[in-house]
Amino acid sequence: MIISTIASHSSLQILLGAKDEGFKTRLYVKPERRAFYASTRLADELVVTEEMGAILEDDGIVIPHGSFVAYLGLEAIENAKAKFFGNRRFLKWETSFELQDRALKKAGIPMVEVIEPGEAKPDELYFVRLEGPRGGSGHFLAYGYELEEKTKDLSEPYRIERFTDGVYLYVHFFYSPILNRLELFGVDERLVIADANKRRPFRTLPYTIAGNKAVALRESLIPVLYDYGLAFVDAMEELEPPGIIGPFALHFAYDGEFRCIGFASRIDGGSNAKHWYSALYWERPMLMGERIAREIKLALEEDRLREVVA
Amino acid sequence: MIISTIASHSSLQILLGAKDEGFKTRLYVKPERRAFYASTRLADELVVTEEMGAILEDDGIVIPHGSFVAYLGLEAIENAKAKFFGNRRFLKWETSFELQDRALKKAGIPMVEVIEPGEAKPDELYFVRLEGPRGGSGHFLAYGYELEEKTKDLSEPYRIERFTDGVYLYVHFFYSPILNRLELFGVDERLVIADANKRRPFRTLPYTIAGNKAVALRESLIPVLYDYGLAFVDAMEELEPPGIIGPFALHFAYDGEFRCIGFASRIDGGSNAKHWYSALYWERPMLMGERIAREIKLALEEDRLREVVA
Amino acid sequence: MIISTIASHSSLQILLGAKDEGFKTRLYVKPERRAFYASTRLADELVVTEEMGAILEDDGIVIPHGSFVAYLGLEAIENAKAKFFGNRRFLKWETSFELQDRALKKAGIPMVEVIEPGEAKPDELYFVRLEGPRGGSGHFLAYGYELEEKTKDLSEPYRIERFTDGVYLYVHFFYSPILNRLELFGVDERLVIADANKRRPFRTLPYTIAGNKAVALRESLIPVLYDYGLAFVDAMEELEPPGIIGPFALHFAYDGEFRCIGFASRIDGGSNAKHWYSALYWERPMLMGERIAREIKLALEEDRLREVVA
Repeated sequence: MIISTIASHSSLQILLGAKDEGFKTRLYVKPERRAFYASTRLADELVVTEEMGAILEDDGIVIPHGSFVAYLGLEAIENAKAKFFGNRRFLKWETSFELQDRALKKAGIPMVEVIEPGEAKPDELYFVRLEGPRGGSGHFLAYGYELEEKTKDLSEPYRIERFTDGVYLYVHFFYSPILNRLELFGVDERLVIADANKRRPFRTLPYTIAGNKAVALRESLIPVLYDYGLAFVDAMEELEPPGIIGPFALHFAYDGEFRCIGFASRIDGGSNAKHWYSALYWERPMLMGERIAREIKLALEEDRLREVVA
Repeated sequence: MIISTIASHSSLQILLGAKDEGFKTRLYVKPERRAFYASTRLADELVVTEEMGAILEDDGIVIPHGSFVAYLGLEAIENAKAKFFGNRRFLKWETSFELQDRALKKAGIPMVEVIEPGEAKPDELYFVRLEGPRGGSGHFLAYGYELEEKTKDLSEPYRIERFTDGVYLYVHFFYSPILNRLELFGVDERLVIADANKRRPFRTLPYTIAGNKAVALRESLIPVLYDYGLAFVDAMEELEPPGIIGPFALHFAYDGEFRCIGFASRIDGGSNAKHWYSALYWERPMLMGERIAREIKLALEEDRLREVVA
Repeated sequence: MIISTIASHSSLQILLGAKDEGFKTRLYVKPERRAFYASTRLADELVVTEEMGAILEDDGIVIPHGSFVAYLGLEAIENAKAKFFGNRRFLKWETSFELQDRALKKAGIPMVEVIEPGEAKPDELYFVRLEGPRGGSGHFLAYGYELEEKTKDLSEPYRIERFTDGVYLYVHFFYSPILNRLELFGVDERLVIADANKRRPFRTLPYTIAGNKAVALRESLIPVLYDYGLAFVDAMEELEPPGIIGPFALHFAYDGEFRCIGFASRIDGGSNAKHWYSALYWERPMLMGERIAREIKLALEEDRLREVVA
């Protein structure tokens, strides 16, 4: 059996995990990125192409990640002949405010407060969030008095959130239909351009993500987050049957209380920051990419592949 | 032999280590936290109860951590029938300024400067620290001119420290009576709510800890810290015989010089951030929780359990 | 075969790697640092001495690191009888602006903009960088209007860079002549005193490095950095034959674009922050120190030691 993905986002850990679990691997890579990927031991087969659409007809098991929707489009993925790991209809749920809100409300997870432009107070700080996953880029911070000026030329859907004075934590989960178990796999903090402010007089800067850092969570906070994960799995099972298969992430602002600011309906790039929590479930720490391959292996051993490829 | 603890603070690594070293494990957990802990492979036995006091009569070896004093009280722990890993009379030393100062002075470790309210200069920055370990909450930053206003309603003991413009490093040690060796196990940086200021115009915010991040220390600083660790072990051996058994942490502000701001007289939550320094002593990196279990195993093998259970 | 180094900078990972790859180890250590190093399993032989120059006559393979030039001087190293791992004539390339610029230009790597004092605008922010590697100390931030005042008493060579509002990423590479392969080993972020500003109203503070934190890079950025690494290896092969052997690091400011701010022409201290990228090339994650030992082992097995000891 071969495991295939596109060279971006979290393909390193996806293929590394596939190799370590004994699978053959295939990587679709753009010519300008070939040198790096070819230097590694990851890909048994490199498909060097400008056209990522080729993966839609792959004959292995395709592992989607955060670049798939941008490269291929939701419709093409939903209609593809190739076998995709996970529930491919879950992928769209992170792409619009409407679906996101519906899922989080259904799960009963507290959300960051969204305000109408007219409600903003001049001297308070707000976070203007553009719709869809975008690696942090485009979002910005603004005082109430700046909102009109700063939003008037936005051509994309956005909304205005009350800014949380706190830390931002991204919690990585894996739901296993084979083991019927939710696993809390790790937590990361984003490293964003705006973090430059830890070394300069304050200035509004982009929230573009440059990387991720593992965080060991204060232990008393973990059961709370795990319960949110369980509720989310239950909600999605009703909203998009058969529900979640494999990795997802919940994104929180934390100022003493958690408020959800979004989620990833596939493996989240923040899981690239290796974490040891996976050892709570397995014989040693593993990356989310390896957990995916492990689930496929378990499914194959029990002849239940259909339950993880939907 | 069974290893027991309470589900909080650092129980994940304590039980994970116990399992990996071959012990049976027992976890006392509140009902609302059960789902998460039950999802893991950690506990051979889950005691689901609102009453953590039950652990005081446990028939295994109890590993105390940073939530024990809050849950059970010092007196109950000191008088408990259960076997506790470590010197249970050492636990109190982190709970008051007086004991803390006595220990650090005895060890000759440089301390952050404490000032009298009358000495504060209006435009200088100070750190108001409440007494006892508290996960960072309650402490606050204030300019001299704000001190009177901000401290006047404090109902708990506190003191005013000169604020150090620098980084805050938490150094994790393990003292082994079996090997007669002090091991420097890792270093972390706290992630606190107030770190929000790396993304917003400055505002005073709580110092509540949300998580921990591993730090690889500049190597030339390590021998200095190790010597402080040795001095602390020597001091405690005199002040509270038989002295330290197992994990503790020294907390420092660093602005080019180290100044101690406190210590943990048990496993410190910051050791939840996995670090590789333990490989300097052992065949591979291990968490502090595993180091504790390893010490018990070594003691049992040499029939010296009494030396690590005091 | 014995592997030798000086107790500082990255000697922990160098000796740990040597041990784990099966070598004997020797460490030259100052008396005041002895206690810590002696507590570990790292050194088969401790040479306790104030005179680090003794290593110049060592009969093993000496692994140079970031403290070697400061302790021994470039000339003494270049003329030493001892066998040094790597191309010892490469060491000098990080020590002056002139050599640094020549290497980066030759490689075609985009560099941070350097400005003449007269060009500075009063209200813009600049970074004054002193020449040579120095653990971050001495450099400082200044507005244009402060430059004259703040630079007038500098007794060392310096230059003025446009300040990049972004994150600072240190990328660790290993070039293997034995495998004829460049490996991207990890990325870190420095923890510097000036980061204190994430918890206080802004104030200019020293850039002295206290530690390092591993960063998982946004995956789409990695191939770009890898190509810079390749170009750098090619450039140095021409500029300082036989070119790079073993570890080096490229240092970047990133605000959406990468701009190089310097490099390390030896193992970089930031590689002390353990990273998993090495597993892209090897059976498991390893520290750079182990990679060096592995290269020596591979060279010995193929009787090609001369190719890695230049």
